[in-house]
Amino acid sequence: MYAERVAGLKSSAIREILKITARPEVISFAGGLPAPELFPVKDISDAAQKLFLKYGSTVLQYSITEGILPLREKIASGFHSDTGTIGADNVLITQGSQQGLDLLSKLFIDKGSVIFTENPSYLGALQSFQLFRGDIVPIASDENGIRPNDLLERLRRKRPALLYLMPNFQNPSGSSLSLERRRKLIEIVSSHDLIVIEDDPYGELLFKGERLPSLFALGGSRNFIYMSSFSKTVAPGLRVAYVLADEEIISKLVIIKQGTDLQTNTIGQYLVDEYLESGKYFTHIENLRKMYALRRDCMLSAMKRHFPEAVTWNCPSGGMFLWVKLPEGEDARRLLDRCLRRNVAFVPGQEFFPDGSGENTIRLNFSNASIEKIEEGIGRMGEVMRETFL
Amino acid sequence: MYAERVAGLKSSAIREILKITARPEVISFAGGLPAPELFPVKDISDAAQKLFLKYGSTVLQYSITEGILPLREKIASGFHSDTGTIGADNVLITQGSQQGLDLLSKLFIDKGSVIFTENPSYLGALQSFQLFRGDIVPIASDENGIRPNDLLERLRRKRPALLYLMPNFQNPSGSSLSLERRRKLIEIVSSHDLIVIEDDPYGELLFKGERLPSLFALGGSRNFIYMSSFSKTVAPGLRVAYVLADEEIISKLVIIKQGTDLQTNTIGQYLVDEYLESGKYFTHIENLRKMYALRRDCMLSAMKRHFPEAVTWNCPSGGMFLWVKLPEGEDARRLLDRCLRRNVAFVPGQEFFPDGSGENTIRLNFSNASIEKIEEGIGRMGEVMRETFL
Repeated sequence: MYAERVAGLKSSAIREILKITARPEVISFAGGLPAPELFPVKDISDAAQKLFLKYGSTVLQYSITEGILPLREKIASGFHSDTGTIGADNVLITQGSQQGLDLLSKLFIDKGSVIFTENPSYLGALQSFQLFRGDIVPIASDENGIRPNDLLERLRRKRPALLYLMPNFQNPSGSSLSLERRRKLIEIVSSHDLIVIEDDPYGELLFKGERLPSLFALGGSRNFIYMSSFSKTVAPGLRVAYVLADEEIISKLVIIKQGTDLQTNTIGQYLVDEYLESGKYFTHIENLRKMYALRRDCMLSAMKRHFPEAVTWNCPSGGMFLWVKLPEGEDARRLLDRCLRRNVAFVPGQEFFPDGSGENTIRLNFSNASIEKIEEGIGRMGEVMRETFL
Repeated sequence: MYAERVAGLKSSAIREILKITARPEVISFAGGLPAPELFPVKDISDAAQKLFLKYGSTVLQYSITEGILPLREKIASGFHSDTGTIGADNVLITQGSQQGLDLLSKLFIDKGSVIFTENPSYLGALQSFQLFRGDIVPIASDENGIRPNDLLERLRRKRPALLYLMPNFQNPSGSSLSLERRRKLIEIVSSHDLIVIEDDPYGELLFKGERLPSLFALGGSRNFIYMSSFSKTVAPGLRVAYVLADEEIISKLVIIKQGTDLQTNTIGQYLVDEYLESGKYFTHIENLRKMYALRRDCMLSAMKRHFPEAVTWNCPSGGMFLWVKLPEGEDARRLLDRCLRRNVAFVPGQEFFPDGSGENTIRLNFSNASIEKIEEGIGRMGEVMRETFL
């Protein structure tokens, strides 16, 4: 009765954990939610009022599949001026980045197509590739992102339809691709003429120092497709994200999007556009960076005080996630069961590894909980760890 | 470089015509746009204000894939009380009906799966089925919808993965499936245990008499999946539509939607919910029905006065489209070229026929243009017809 692709379909473990964390007594580091108390509610509400006066029924009518022009122009000029040559025709507005992945899967993936990913990699991307029956091949990755030598090794045996990367503050590991590796990667990609999806929802959430240039800016639109989103910077409920690519790819994605959902919601696009127009975006981002850095620091400090010595973690310079390693041989899922009894939740890292490794890893979200809850929740996790490992 | 499905991909002729009709001097009967001057702009704007005060950041945050609960409850109880047994768990909110088609294609269609459709059928559905490489088999259809005898004939040779129907005021033909045929169809579907998608975006736009019961209400959720939308009744730019089905199908669609776009935009869902809550929906629909009936009548009257006798048309009792037949042997595309030179546009019907027939047919939209423009545009079309055929 169902299509073949349905046989392997299962709800992600994260979604199942999130159902438990909906209970108010649970302190959750499990979701990937931005902090709602930092949303610019008043400014978006004001923007909504302005919109209806300024554009009237246009805000409610069908609009073009590509996305509204003023927003595409702002994205091309304001956010990616370092890329030089791109214009509105290189931009497609999508219904969240997850839709960007769906459209790109439709464009590039046949049953059995090989997709190279980091190991671990973003679960939503893996789900999308699996829906189109792609064959996911993980490439060894570490604190500085994907390892160029392992990529070269794999390329000797297989040619992928796509290489999928999240080079800034990766979900789940928080790792970032170093500048040196970006340069090496571009050489490899160019000499093998690969297609790379650079997924960058967290790039704006940089806590310190200078932002590394995107692969798209360094390597060009022949081989690179860039994706970002306003979900982590303005508000996820608006579902406004975008793909940057060369015009041929954008025009094919537009036809695919016609058959997928016709267009991204008009009102969300106008709200983001009006909010950018107001000039409040940049102070807002500064504030987000400060607040998220503070929460990260609280989490790091609490872990240092509460976690046993055998447990280690990284210190991402941005984004929303920390990555924790339990001692070899420990099972994060077993730890989760015990933590849930103490009303604290996280996501076991194994879920994110296409090769099924990472049994002893944990993803912790630091953007959503208050600093009080971070202290309390990490404290409880530390107690459970001591009971379990020691 | 691209997936196999991309080879046959082309932008729909309608989208191409719509680019021409964006010029303000063109009178267009080509699009399928609701009348923007009838959108409840003030009420939606008021609803937006209320929402931010009432729910605050919730309106901007991620929400569950199924769709927000109060809206699903309203849909289950208010709109489909005749179906008796359905509840919120039988409802999935989608990003417009086009996304409903995308999700259902993912659930049911493999490469080469057979899909039975009306002939002509809705272009957006055909595009979605083609993206998933389904094999479309048109069933003979007339003014009363699909012909049960032809369906039976086809079933002797092939078993379809899906039967796709638009039983009320079909896009493009304006035809409706008669009650007698609904009953016959349900017998056939039940005895062959088929899966039917009942796509009903126009059912609320009934100008006179009583609404026919849905196939879903008559036949039940074992074999029928129902789709409708707020695009034609409230506003298309919000992108809020829904699928009704049995709980097993809904739960599979939810997992598929997670990998497709995570969720429908939160703000659009709350706006529709708040608008329904305000109680203004029903008077609004009454007004829409009156205004669209008036436009249909103007178009019918103008055609009678301006079109040559050899041209015939139907009189749909609702919806947004009329269906015109030119004399046998005439080509509507050639007529369109001539009409565009006189700044009036329509869609040649052939586009909608999976079997490539219908060369002499035309779809006319009567919901979008004012009565003055309808009179003027039909007049110009009549002149061109007289020059061409006589």
